[in-house]
Amino acid sequence: MDEFQLIDLIVETLGPTAQAPWVRVGPGDDCTVTDLPAGHQLVSSIDTLLGGVHFPIDSNPQLIGYRAMMVSLSDVVAMGAKPAFVMIALTLPDADEVWVRALADGIRRAAQVSGAAVAGGNITRGPVCLSLSVHGSLPAGTALLRSGARPGDGVYVSGEIGGAAFALKTGKLEAYAGLDHLDPAGRAYFAPAPPFHLADAIRTSASAAIDVSDGLLQDLGHLCKASGVGVDLKEKLIPVFAGMSVADAVNGSDDYVMCFTSPGFELPGVTRIGTVTAEPGIWIDGVAQNLTGYQHFNS
Amino acid sequence: MDEFQLIDLIVETLGPTAQAPWVRVGPGDDCTVTDLPAGHQLVSSIDTLLGGVHFPIDSNPQLIGYRAMMVSLSDVVAMGAKPAFVMIALTLPDADEVWVRALADGIRRAAQVSGAAVAGGNITRGPVCLSLSVHGSLPAGTALLRSGARPGDGVYVSGEIGGAAFALKTGKLEAYAGLDHLDPAGRAYFAPAPPFHLADAIRTSASAAIDVSDGLLQDLGHLCKASGVGVDLKEKLIPVFAGMSVADAVNGSDDYVMCFTSPGFELPGVTRIGTVTAEPGIWIDGVAQNLTGYQHFNS
Repeated sequence: MDEFQLIDLIVETLGPTAQAPWVRVGPGDDCTVTDLPAGHQLVSSIDTLLGGVHFPIDSNPQLIGYRAMMVSLSDVVAMGAKPAFVMIALTLPDADEVWVRALADGIRRAAQVSGAAVAGGNITRGPVCLSLSVHGSLPAGTALLRSGARPGDGVYVSGEIGGAAFALKTGKLEAYAGLDHLDPAGRAYFAPAPPFHLADAIRTSASAAIDVSDGLLQDLGHLCKASGVGVDLKEKLIPVFAGMSVADAVNGSDDYVMCFTSPGFELPGVTRIGTVTAEPGIWIDGVAQNLTGYQHFNS
Repeated sequence: MDEFQLIDLIVETLGPTAQAPWVRVGPGDDCTVTDLPAGHQLVSSIDTLLGGVHFPIDSNPQLIGYRAMMVSLSDVVAMGAKPAFVMIALTLPDADEVWVRALADGIRRAAQVSGAAVAGGNITRGPVCLSLSVHGSLPAGTALLRSGARPGDGVYVSGEIGGAAFALKTGKLEAYAGLDHLDPAGRAYFAPAPPFHLADAIRTSASAAIDVSDGLLQDLGHLCKASGVGVDLKEKLIPVFAGMSVADAVNGSDDYVMCFTSPGFELPGVTRIGTVTAEPGIWIDGVAQNLTGYQHFNS
């Protein structure tokens, strides 16, 4: 297949998920053209997932596609925004039709779950790599930032911590056969679930938010730094994946759950794990923590 | 330097070009937040430039950064839109501070020329690679597509053809020392000049447009296919880079000039090179052409 046949194959596999009422021009021209609702702002992020670094290169392509969408869209939810559209720059070593169709199927399923249209993209020959630009919208002036946490706020997470790190530790990620064949560890790694349904509630009730990608403590550290505060967590409140120690879980990467602060928040699936403090720092049960989460270029 | 120090270095080098009145939240949170002018639509595209494929890996990093911005923003102009912002996903093998600072300087200079703010990004360890998501805005419903060319329209280009292909042929791209040390061939390759100042004029006067990236004939082929027309070019009208044959120029890649059709267009720097025909096909002086421009995955 040549480049243009591959693009046709992907667009065909995406089906209705390449379109949406707010996508006026979808894949096929120099740019996509999209509408924002009146009075709304655009939120945008870009992420790169490189085979062998961000996922095992021999993983099932459906899982690679699904996960790439979810980990990227997690940033949109962290602003309290509703997903609108995604563009995908795909790099591939060869034009393997079966592999590409499965990848596009995973992307399609994530688009259905998130509500984001896959409105454009690009294919290049090279190592397996996906860069996704993800976009959402929210009422102007309501974006939820990292910087609004205040002493006394509760600290919340939208799901279990440490499942993806557990899956990485097993070293068997290549064995999963697809989205319909995941055990809890495989689900934690390949099918993270940003709480799209909670975006409105989080935006209106939270004071600050961040998505947990590099480890709960490290990402909480970014939130604390931006807000000029600290947090005191309670070990027994942290929802840890079965089989992981708390220490490994809070420093493990790839959770893609939402972490946010709020004067008060009660919704199913959300757990309060601690309290914002005026003094900068991160404590668990009063013990100061070192931040050892994932970093590129650590040296 | 660690990942976060590298990001700080880039943001510092970008200076004011990381900001703009329409960028409400710039680099540093989970997403950027941007405003569109009321009544406007967003145009968006994503491109990947991989070292060793899309540019020689040992090129001057300032030139890599400048060129990456320009070739990506070329798609925004092809819609007749005004550049608004860019997000850059950068992949690097190591944290070379001097290299990264020069890259960011090239990006900064392109941001100044184009008017696009560099509003966000991401850094990952891996082979040298840049993925850019580029965004612009235009009055709702006015996007210029590939599909509007009509028989009898003129065919226009916004600059010379074949200069980048000439530069690629010389094999000396690594020798250029920076933006202030380019000869005409180096300028054609590393400093393409999408006609930002003509975007309004092209949008209101042209019937269809495409940016020339894979070769004039191949890209004109896409425009013709989308419009259901053909084109008859006049060899003596095509502005060809000195030293290139017309045949090599019209099939050479990386021009990043604008090609558009219009019932009539007269502005400095724009050249009429032929006429749209009802019969599908591409002719030069009546001779049918084969399309042999650049394709990934050609096999």
